Amino acid sequence: MSDRLSIDPAHLTTASAALLDHVRESAPLVHCITNSVVTNFTANAVLAIGAAPAMVDIRVEAGLFAGIASGLLVNLGTPHEEQRDAAREAVAAASDAGTPWVLDPVAVGALPVRTSLAHELLAHRPTAIRGNASEVIALAGAGAGGRGVDAADSTDAAAEAARHLALTYGSVVAVSGPIDLITDGRRTARVANGDALLTRMTGGGCALGAVTAAFLGASRASATEGASRADADLTATVAATLVYTVAAELAAAVSAGPGTFGPAFLDALALVTPEQVVERARVTLTDGASEPAPSVATGAEVGA
Amino acid sequence: MSDRLSIDPAHLTTASAALLDHVRESAPLVHCITNSVVTNFTANAVLAIGAAPAMVDIRVEAGLFAGIASGLLVNLGTPHEEQRDAAREAVAAASDAGTPWVLDPVAVGALPVRTSLAHELLAHRPTAIRGNASEVIALAGAGAGGRGVDAADSTDAAAEAARHLALTYGSVVAVSGPIDLITDGRRTARVANGDALLTRMTGGGCALGAVTAAFLGASRASATEGASRADADLTATVAATLVYTVAAELAAAVSAGPGTFGPAFLDALALVTPEQVVERARVTLTDGASEPAPSVATGAEVGA
Amino acid sequence: MSDRLSIDPAHLTTASAALLDHVRESAPLVHCITNSVVTNFTANAVLAIGAAPAMVDIRVEAGLFAGIASGLLVNLGTPHEEQRDAAREAVAAASDAGTPWVLDPVAVGALPVRTSLAHELLAHRPTAIRGNASEVIALAGAGAGGRGVDAADSTDAAAEAARHLALTYGSVVAVSGPIDLITDGRRTARVANGDALLTRMTGGGCALGAVTAAFLGASRASATEGASRADADLTATVAATLVYTVAAELAAAVSAGPGTFGPAFLDALALVTPEQVVERARVTLTDGASEPAPSVATGAEVGA
Repeated sequence: MSDRLSIDPAHLTTASAALLDHVRESAPLVHCITNSVVTNFTANAVLAIGAAPAMVDIRVEAGLFAGIASGLLVNLGTPHEEQRDAAREAVAAASDAGTPWVLDPVAVGALPVRTSLAHELLAHRPTAIRGNASEVIALAGAGAGGRGVDAADSTDAAAEAARHLALTYGSVVAVSGPIDLITDGRRTARVANGDALLTRMTGGGCALGAVTAAFLGASRASATEGASRADADLTATVAATLVYTVAAELAAAVSAGPGTFGPAFLDALALVTPEQVVERARVTLTDGASEPAPSVATGAEVGA
Repeated sequence: MSDRLSIDPAHLTTASAALLDHVRESAPLVHCITNSVVTNFTANAVLAIGAAPAMVDIRVEAGLFAGIASGLLVNLGTPHEEQRDAAREAVAAASDAGTPWVLDPVAVGALPVRTSLAHELLAHRPTAIRGNASEVIALAGAGAGGRGVDAADSTDAAAEAARHLALTYGSVVAVSGPIDLITDGRRTARVANGDALLTRMTGGGCALGAVTAAFLGASRASATEGASRADADLTATVAATLVYTVAAELAAAVSAGPGTFGPAFLDALALVTPEQVVERARVTLTDGASEPAPSVATGAEVGA
Repeated sequence: MSDRLSIDPAHLTTASAALLDHVRESAPLVHCITNSVVTNFTANAVLAIGAAPAMVDIRVEAGLFAGIASGLLVNLGTPHEEQRDAAREAVAAASDAGTPWVLDPVAVGALPVRTSLAHELLAHRPTAIRGNASEVIALAGAGAGGRGVDAADSTDAAAEAARHLALTYGSVVAVSGPIDLITDGRRTARVANGDALLTRMTGGGCALGAVTAAFLGASRASATEGASRADADLTATVAATLVYTVAAELAAAVSAGPGTFGPAFLDALALVTPEQVVERARVTLTDGASEPAPSVATGAEVGA
C-alpha cells in the first residue's frame, strides 16, 4: 500500500532527531494564542526547544502576525472575547499565508463557547489537532458516533474519532495519553515515551501544541521539492511528540516531584540530544488496514 | 457550650490528615476564577495536592461549570470586566447547586471596582472567605467599626472583623499571617505552621484559596449524615490551611531562596504525608467565650 | 563638561549597591501593567529584590493606584483593550503625581496597536524606556532615521536611537543586550554583566522593567535636596540593570539550563549582596563628546 510505504517507520525516529536539529538551527517564529494558565510555561517551552515564541492575541495584530509566523497555535483553554476574535483572525490569515497551525480544543464538549469556536475554526482545516482522548472524541462529535466525553478515555478509545477528524479536515490528529497516538487518518503512529509527571503539572499538554507548531514550521521551511506534505506534517507531529516525551523522561529522572519537574523539563527540552531521541524512542507505525491495533506491541517497533 | 464541644480540638489535626487522604482519593474538581498573576501557580498547587483544577472565567461557561464543580474559588486580584461577569454567574450557580465556594477579596478597600464586586458577591454567602488581615478588616468595613486598611495588620488585629464577617454571612473566615486564624464566628482555630517564604513568592496566599475549595469539596462529598455542616466546613478550612503550611515548612527546608521555594513547595504539596501533618501541626482552638486570646499559647494545643 | 562630571563614574557601582540596600529597606510599591506571559515572573522578581508588586490593570483602579505607587511599569507585550485603557489612566495619573514610570515597548514597529499606544504614552514623557535594540530603534522611528526593526540589532546599533529618544522625551533609555546600554542622551553607561540564559527564559527583559521602576521609586524617595533628578534617574536605571545582571551571573553558575535558571535567578535577586554587586560590576560611562564608543573598553572602567 502506498500509504504505508510513503513513510518508512524505521526512519521516523531519525527524522525526528534531524528535525530537532533543524528547529534549533532555524528558530521558527511560533505565534501562540493560548490560555492564561499556561502562557508562561508555553513560551518557556518554545524557547527551550530552540524556537521563538510570540504571544499575540489581540484584534488586528493577531491576523497580521499569523501571516509572518512560521507556525501558529490556537489553544481554547480560556477563550476570552477579545482572544476569540484574535483566534478567528489568526486562523484566517494562517490559512491564506500557508502558515501551518495547530488547534488545541481544550475541554470542548461540555462548554459551549469554546465548542462553538472550535467547530468554526475547524472549517479552516488545521494542520494539526492536539488534545486528550476525551477532547478528540468530543470534537469528532456526532460524526464519529456521538460518544460522550469521559476524562478516562484512553488514546486507543479515541483512535476512531482521531482518524475521522483527520480524514474530514485533512489534519494530523495527535491524542495525548500514556501512549500518544498520532494519525493522518491513514497511518497511525504511537509514541510510548513520556512520564506521568507531565500530567501532574499544568501545561504539559498545552505546551506540546506550541512545540508541534514549531516542528511543523521548521519542517515546512525545509521541505524538499516533491516530498509529500502529508508525510512531512505527520512526521513533524510525531517528531514534536517524541522529542517532548523523551525530554519528559530525562526530566523525571532528576525531579523530586511535580514542582521541580517543571524547571527540569524545560532544561531537558533545551539539552536533549538527537542521539538521546533515537536511543529512547518507542514508536510504532501502522496503516489503516491493520487498525485497530490490539496493543502497542503490534506494528513496526522502532528504537528501544 | 455546645459550640465548643461539637469540634474536639484534639481531633482537628487527625481530621486534617484524613481529609488530605480524601482529597487525593476523590480528586475534587476545583473551579478557579482567579487573577492573572497566579493562575499557573494556583493550577499547579491544586494538581499537586491531588485535586483537578479548571480555570473557567468567561461568560456563559462560568455559570455552567460552577454547577458541576466540587468547589469554586473566586479571587478578585485582577477583576477584568469579562471575569467580573463570570464571577457573578459562577457564584449564583454555586449557590443554586450547593457547590462550596471561597471568596478571596484581594486588595479590597482602597480599590473600588473589586470592593464593590466583593460586597455584591458576599450577599451570596460564601462558604469561606480567605484573605490577609488588612483585607478581612476592609471587607468587614463599617460593620466592624470602619477600621482602615493597613498592610501591617496582624491576624489577631483582624480577629474581631473575621468573627463579624463569619456571623454576618454564615462563612468560615480564614485570615492568613504568621499565625493563620480560622473562625466561624463562634470557634476560632489558629495554625502556627508555615514559613515566611510563602510571602516572598506571589500566589502563596491566593493558591491557598483554591486548595481550601478542594478540601471543602472533598469534605462535602464525604459528609456523614447528621454531621454538622458548620463543623465540617470549619474543619475543612483548617485542614487546608494546616496541610498547606506544613508543606511550606517542608519546602523551606530544601530551598535556597524564594525562587527555588516555589517548585519545592509544589513538590511538598504532592508528597506531604498525613503523618507529617499530624506530627508537625501547631493548632489551637478557642470558643467565643475565651476570646480574644492573648496569644497562641492559649487554647487547646494539639500536636507538636 | 558639567554633564560628564555630575556623575562620577567611579561611584556608579557603589551607588548601585547602596540603592539595592535602599530598595530592600523601603520596599517600594511597584504598580505593574504588564503582559500576560510574564505577570507571575515579574511579580516574583519584584518580590525577590525586596519591593512590593501590585498588578492593577483594570479601568478606574489603574489610575487610582498609579497615584499612590512608588513606581509604575507599563509593558505593552499583550495590550488587551481593557489594559490599554488602564495604561492610559495609569500614565496620566503617574505624570500628575510625579510617580516615576517605565515604558517597555515590546515588539513595537511591526504591530500597529501597541505601536500607536506607545507613541501616545510617550507624550507623557516616561522616566525610563526599556527595550531591546530593535524596539528602541523602532520606537525612535523616523526621528532617528526611520531604520527598520531587526531582531539582530546590537545595543550599539541602537545607541543613536536611544540618545534621540532620551533627549526628545527627557527619559533615561535602557537598551538590553549582551552589553546593556543606558543613556540620558548626554551620558551613556554600559553594563557588561549578565548571562545568555536571561534570553532563554521568557520575562528576562520584561521583569527588568519592573525592577527598574522599583529602583527609580526608591531613589526618588531618598533623593537629597539639591541633587540632580537627571543624575538620580540615570543612576537608578544603571543600578537596576547592574544588580539584575549580576544576579543573572550568580544564578547561571548554579543552573543546569533555562528551566532551573528561573528559580535560581529569583533566589539570586533575593540573595545578591551589595558587595557582590561592587565586586562583579563591569560598568563604563562616557559622555556625549566621546560617542560613539568603538567598544566597551573605552570610557572609564569601573569595578572588575
